Parts: sequence; C-alpha cells; structure tokens
Amino acid sequence: MSPDDIRLAHALADAAGAAIRPFFRAEFAMEQKGDDSPVTAADRAAEAAMRALIEAERPEDGIFGEEYGVVRGEARRVWVLDPIDGTRAFVTGRPLFGTLIALVEEGVPALGVIDQPILRERWVGARGQPTRFNAMPVSTRHCATLDHAHIGSTAPQAFAEAELHAYGRVAAGARDAIWGGDCYNYGLVALGQLDAVIEANLKLYDFAALVPVVEGAGGVMRDWQGAPLTAASDGRVVAAGDPRLLAPILARLEG
Amino acid sequence: MSPDDIRLAHALADAAGAAIRPFFRAEFAMEQKGDDSPVTAADRAAEAAMRALIEAERPEDGIFGEEYGVVRGEARRVWVLDPIDGTRAFVTGRPLFGTLIALVEEGVPALGVIDQPILRERWVGARGQPTRFNAMPVSTRHCATLDHAHIGSTAPQAFAEAELHAYGRVAAGARDAIWGGDCYNYGLVALGQLDAVIEANLKLYDFAALVPVVEGAGGVMRDWQGAPLTAASDGRVVAAGDPRLLAPILARLEG
Repeated sequence: MSPDDIRLAHALADAAGAAIRPFFRAEFAMEQKGDDSPVTAADRAAEAAMRALIEAERPEDGIFGEEYGVVRGEARRVWVLDPIDGTRAFVTGRPLFGTLIALVEEGVPALGVIDQPILRERWVGARGQPTRFNAMPVSTRHCATLDHAHIGSTAPQAFAEAELHAYGRVAAGARDAIWGGDCYNYGLVALGQLDAVIEANLKLYDFAALVPVVEGAGGVMRDWQGAPLTAASDGRVVAAGDPRLLAPILARLEG
Repeated sequence: MSPDDIRLAHALADAAGAAIRPFFRAEFAMEQKGDDSPVTAADRAAEAAMRALIEAERPEDGIFGEEYGVVRGEARRVWVLDPIDGTRAFVTGRPLFGTLIALVEEGVPALGVIDQPILRERWVGARGQPTRFNAMPVSTRHCATLDHAHIGSTAPQAFAEAELHAYGRVAAGARDAIWGGDCYNYGLVALGQLDAVIEANLKLYDFAALVPVVEGAGGVMRDWQGAPLTAASDGRVVAAGDPRLLAPILARLEG
C-alpha cells in the first residue's frame, strides 16, 4: 500500500464529507430505490465527488460505487465506494452513518476508510499497518470468550429468518447484544469498545472498507464459514476484535 | 417555570457532563445490577454531582435518581434524574446516550433536559416555552399519516411479547422503523428528524424529561391509552412529532 494511495483515500473522504455535511439534518426530498432504501442527494453528491478525484488521479483503476455502479471493473485495483453507509441513520439525523472507501486489489480489500463526517471521526486501515483513528493507532480489546462479549448487528430485518435464528444463538451466548450501528460498529470494534459484529446481506461496498480497519487493529473479519472476505463473498460477515472469539461465534452460527 | 429553575437544570447537565466525559471510551470495570443493565462509575459520579447541587440550591425539593433512589419523594417538586440513559450505547462507545433531568411538579413533568455530553448537544423543554436545542428554538415536522412516518424504538428486548406484536403493527404501517436510540430518539423528534417513538417498560426517570422536550417542540407524548404521562404512568409511551399521528398509532397499538 503506497503512501500516495493512503493520501488519496484521505482526499476522497474529505471530498465526501464536504459534500455530505450540508445535507445532514436539513430538509430534503427522498426517493425510493427498488430495494426500498432511502437515497439522498448527499449520497450522490458524495459519490460523484469521489469518482471525479479517482478519475483525475488514478485513471487506470476501476471504480465500484453504490450509486453509480462500475467502471473498469476488470482492473487489478478497484476503488469501492459507499458514500453513505447507514442511510437510515442519516435520514433520521443520527451522526453514526459513515462514508466507506476501499481499495480492493485482485479481489482482496487492501485499504479501507470509515469516515464519520459530522463527528469528524476517521478510521484508516491498510494492509501491513496499524489501523489509525483520527491519526492515532488503535487496537481491539481482549475478549476470549463469548460470555464476556458485547456484540452488535444493525437491524433484525437485514437477516433472513434462518440467519436471524443463527444470530439469536450467538446473542444468547453473549454478554450483551445491541442493534443499530451500520459501519460505525466495526469502527467500535477497532477501538476496543465492541467485541464482535455479525451481519448478513452486505454488498461488497458495505464490507470491503471494514476488513483492513478491523484486521489492522488486531481483529479478524471472515464470512460465516470462516473464510477471508473477498469480492466473491456472499455478504454474510463476522468481525471479531479478539481472534479467539471467531471459533465460538462460527460454531453457534452453524447451529 | 422560573428562569432560575432552568438555570439550575443547565448547571446540573454541565455537572453531569463533566463527570461523564472522562469515562467515555475509557476502560472501566462494569458491575451487574439485578436487572442486568450495566452500571458505570460515570453513572454514579454524574448522579452524585447533580444531587449535591440540588441539595445545595433546592433543599426542600425532592430527588428521584436512577442510581441513588428517592429523598423527599412527597415534595411538591421532585427532580428526576437519569445520569446515563442508554447505558448500552455508552458502554459500547456510541455517543448517543443522554443525561436526563426533569423537574416534576405534583406528578407532572414541567421541565426536561436531554443532554449529550460528548457531542455537546442539549435539548431543554419547559412548560409554556418553545423547546431549545443548543439554545435555538426547534420544532417537530409535519407528518400527518403513518405511511409517511419514520418511527423508532430502542430495542426489541425492551418489549414484552404482546407489546412487540403491537409495535410490529405500527411499524408495518410506517414508512420505516429503526432500532436503537434511547432518549436521543426523542431529541430527534423535537428536531423534526424522526416522526414517532414508541416504547414500553420505561421508568419515570426514563421518560419524565422527554415530555417537555417533545411537547415544547410541537409534539405530543402520551401513554398507550392516549393519556398524558405522569408519575403514575405504566411506562408505555408514544411520542409523536405531529399530533395527528397519535390516533393512528394508538389504534394499531390496541390491535
């Protein structure tokens, strides 16, 4: 991961934040997408700003964004963008949504940014480097057993019924389980404030940026079979701050 | 409501915030209470600081706090305190918990403060005055019908099974429903960012401060039968930013 890629990732997050902030807690028209998620003008403005920077600085890299789709998807390096992860949080005025920026190399997430532009909180993870939170290195906390773990997931409706039961088995063995959070939960794992996050039905742009952030802080991110996450993953993910938590979580997910 | 009561309420929130901030995202020992909610040193320090101020300035008023219980409970005026509402949010490092301060006169909430000490966000509602958010008057938004409403509730596990079904009937008719939030959701209603909040199993210190905040911004807060909230309420509450939303919500709660 070159320092210049990290610099560009910061510039992308800066541009997205500048595009998003004027819309937060402002009145605005909402549209409905086919999948029923609210889409805001902020979403589009932020992704457009990021794409323009990538086109200017990395014209050979691919881009895959939630709002505007794929260009050069066969490139070795693809920037994967979710301008507002946690649209529900954004729409209801909660400053816990995030801009997600990932650089995926040959299908593997190599650089990730979670940026919260209202609170000015930014996590940057890059392969082979410690994850930084507002420029300071951070790490996950020790939590070797599920009964001590605080876990989280964004919303019950994101799970299919069998998945919700699987999550319920994990939650039943945990110290506590919280709902809500979107990408911010993974930032909390990297800060050592939360022990695990379990989700399903995520798209590549929802999880690619999270992997380097969590793993650079000492955690692990895997799919529900325990395999590393790649562009080919099925969207079911587990993040564990303490790698020893992974096995008991996977066992309960399997049933 | 005298200006001096409002001044004191601000002083209480300032004192609580100063007590809480050092503990946020710090490592600390957690205890378990009988009801399984985590209790932090921050909780106790904040309530102790507020009680000391009330004892010094209003020695004849009663105090009812979550942590240290009741003194002079038969007084005409009782200060009702929840130093950290949203303990789960606090424990997992999410800055969406709040300090709740209410002045209850003859059983009726007359003054309420929701304070978020990390984001430095403060809502103050007082009978007969517009609710203020960081000193600026705010108001709820228009939303006359449930199918346009964004609603919220903190956690499914806070509902008994029949209550969860009742909430599900409301959520099924709403535009969207989000989990998480605690007292912050009611602040979002007062800001015109969320249309309704429905909860159950709240204690007086969980809801007393919310009533003046929501109603001073143009909304209504009632119990599930539509009655005003008092010290005698059963802990099932509905907040609606647009008073026209109350009837369709109550009808669906009733089944």
